[in-house]
Amino acid sequence: MSPLFTIPLWIDLAAVAVGGVQGAMFAARFTDNRLDLLGVGIIGIVVGLGGGFGRDILLGLPPAALQSNGYLIVATAAALLGMLLLRVFSRLGPVIIGLDALTIGLFGAIGSSKALAMGLPEVPAIFVGVVAAVGGSVVRDVMLNLPVALMHVGSLYAVAAGVGTATLVVAASLGLPVGAAAIACVVVTTLIRVLAISFGWSLPEQRALSGWQTWRRRR
Amino acid sequence: MSPLFTIPLWIDLAAVAVGGVQGAMFAARFTDNRLDLLGVGIIGIVVGLGGGFGRDILLGLPPAALQSNGYLIVATAAALLGMLLLRVFSRLGPVIIGLDALTIGLFGAIGSSKALAMGLPEVPAIFVGVVAAVGGSVVRDVMLNLPVALMHVGSLYAVAAGVGTATLVVAASLGLPVGAAAIACVVVTTLIRVLAISFGWSLPEQRALSGWQTWRRRR
Amino acid sequence: MSPLFTIPLWIDLAAVAVGGVQGAMFAARFTDNRLDLLGVGIIGIVVGLGGGFGRDILLGLPPAALQSNGYLIVATAAALLGMLLLRVFSRLGPVIIGLDALTIGLFGAIGSSKALAMGLPEVPAIFVGVVAAVGGSVVRDVMLNLPVALMHVGSLYAVAAGVGTATLVVAASLGLPVGAAAIACVVVTTLIRVLAISFGWSLPEQRALSGWQTWRRRR
Repeated sequence: MSPLFTIPLWIDLAAVAVGGVQGAMFAARFTDNRLDLLGVGIIGIVVGLGGGFGRDILLGLPPAALQSNGYLIVATAAALLGMLLLRVFSRLGPVIIGLDALTIGLFGAIGSSKALAMGLPEVPAIFVGVVAAVGGSVVRDVMLNLPVALMHVGSLYAVAAGVGTATLVVAASLGLPVGAAAIACVVVTTLIRVLAISFGWSLPEQRALSGWQTWRRRR
Repeated sequence: MSPLFTIPLWIDLAAVAVGGVQGAMFAARFTDNRLDLLGVGIIGIVVGLGGGFGRDILLGLPPAALQSNGYLIVATAAALLGMLLLRVFSRLGPVIIGLDALTIGLFGAIGSSKALAMGLPEVPAIFVGVVAAVGGSVVRDVMLNLPVALMHVGSLYAVAAGVGTATLVVAASLGLPVGAAAIACVVVTTLIRVLAISFGWSLPEQRALSGWQTWRRRR
Repeated sequence: MSPLFTIPLWIDLAAVAVGGVQGAMFAARFTDNRLDLLGVGIIGIVVGLGGGFGRDILLGLPPAALQSNGYLIVATAAALLGMLLLRVFSRLGPVIIGLDALTIGLFGAIGSSKALAMGLPEVPAIFVGVVAAVGGSVVRDVMLNLPVALMHVGSLYAVAAGVGTATLVVAASLGLPVGAAAIACVVVTTLIRVLAISFGWSLPEQRALSGWQTWRRRR
């Protein structure tokens, strides 16, 4: 099996913290929701760690975030900090978006390479990487009783993760070392995400083919 | 333990494809939701594969759909095809309903027999079969931010799966070979589901017993 | 590793039954939802057993509630009984609230001690205990398409479980036998929950620090 792509713990925790802050900033938009402090902490855990939980459950492993004290503490603390210092972080908007793009790239790279290391084939490895990258935001939306943002016309959030992890899987199957493949994944994901936000790129909305008549008339 | 009920891969993939098409047709009703192509693909994966994920997670197994490339590709492709050819599939309405009834029967039979083969007792085996059959539609509703359809007054969707898988479990405990028990499950599930739709059968709505006075007056 | 805290099966099933009755009483408030009998049964399973499913999935174990027939039967029967005898149970309001507080204390104690016995560190053990105690109510809200109650300003439902399981973890790390630590957990959880309801205690709502100017002016 391909070797595991590992990163220093502090980078992993920093990425979790970015997720927690992002979650708190997202939750702060819904002031009529009357979230309490616990709710903010939960959102931090969900956004910072939810993707990793999903990844490990799909791989049949006990969640890595439960094997040490650090992850839950960092995710909760980051969310509460994000809530308290909302104004500071809001002014840092572009920085946060950049860091978040990096974070989904990193989570995707860790997820897909872990899936490959567990012996999963290519397509499931991409799927697990995407779940690791954006699964937290899905659970966040479900728990806040909102439509799941990434399923709707938006700014290539999950697509960025998908193309990034696909890059990793292709690179790994071409024999590239997993570290290089992971860096390619992070770069591609971050680039697509940041460019999509800058230029307002999005996927087409769902639509059916019209009947043959309209079809022919259009050509 | 009882032996596993296995079906040829192509039947399994065909059932997943029916789920994916169904998911896309369901999602197409919500045009104000502005699902994008990715959202449609996700619905396809959720409806076609979600039940199987739930089944394997409840059984403590790595999801079967992640052990080969085919499942995710078929579910996604079927959903996109279902979206594009919505008019064609809509005209095939009764065919799709019949195929879908067959599919939940099949998923239920695979789920319950897999649970029995893992050594689970009768009631949990029925439960796992029902999750395998209709779990995808629950996740679909949650992700589309809709009330979970099968909990509300409707057309015996989960009930059909429950009676079908109960038939399998009883038949297996009477010593019938698992293949015959599975066929009984599929037939019973399909029959109940199709008859329920045809005749508008449904379960009673929730209601409390009235106080003793009203109770006596009614008799 | 610390030894497992076990309770007699009948206490465990009684706690599941309290959850099922609670679930049905909760669901009965939503008469416009038109839940059917199956929906009520599902809510009973979700509230009575959902926390335990979450606990075992996070611990990488097959769910305990699927290893015997009793749990699913008790949860479903309790929910249907709760629905039928709604008036009786409503008159028993304070009794139900007390039993429910006991139940979340018990589920939290079982969850956290099981996590410690599996070798998890302190903070994840608290987290798993809280999921075991209140996870069912989260899934209940998600499936009924409601905002997740425990994230919003309310009556210290999850907080009671968190303080209780933290008590257990601290007591266990001080060398107390797990039975005593578990009793402390149940007492603390029940006390906080009942007092919070009696006196209307709640956590502060989410809010950002104001700018430095307002901050200074306030002092």
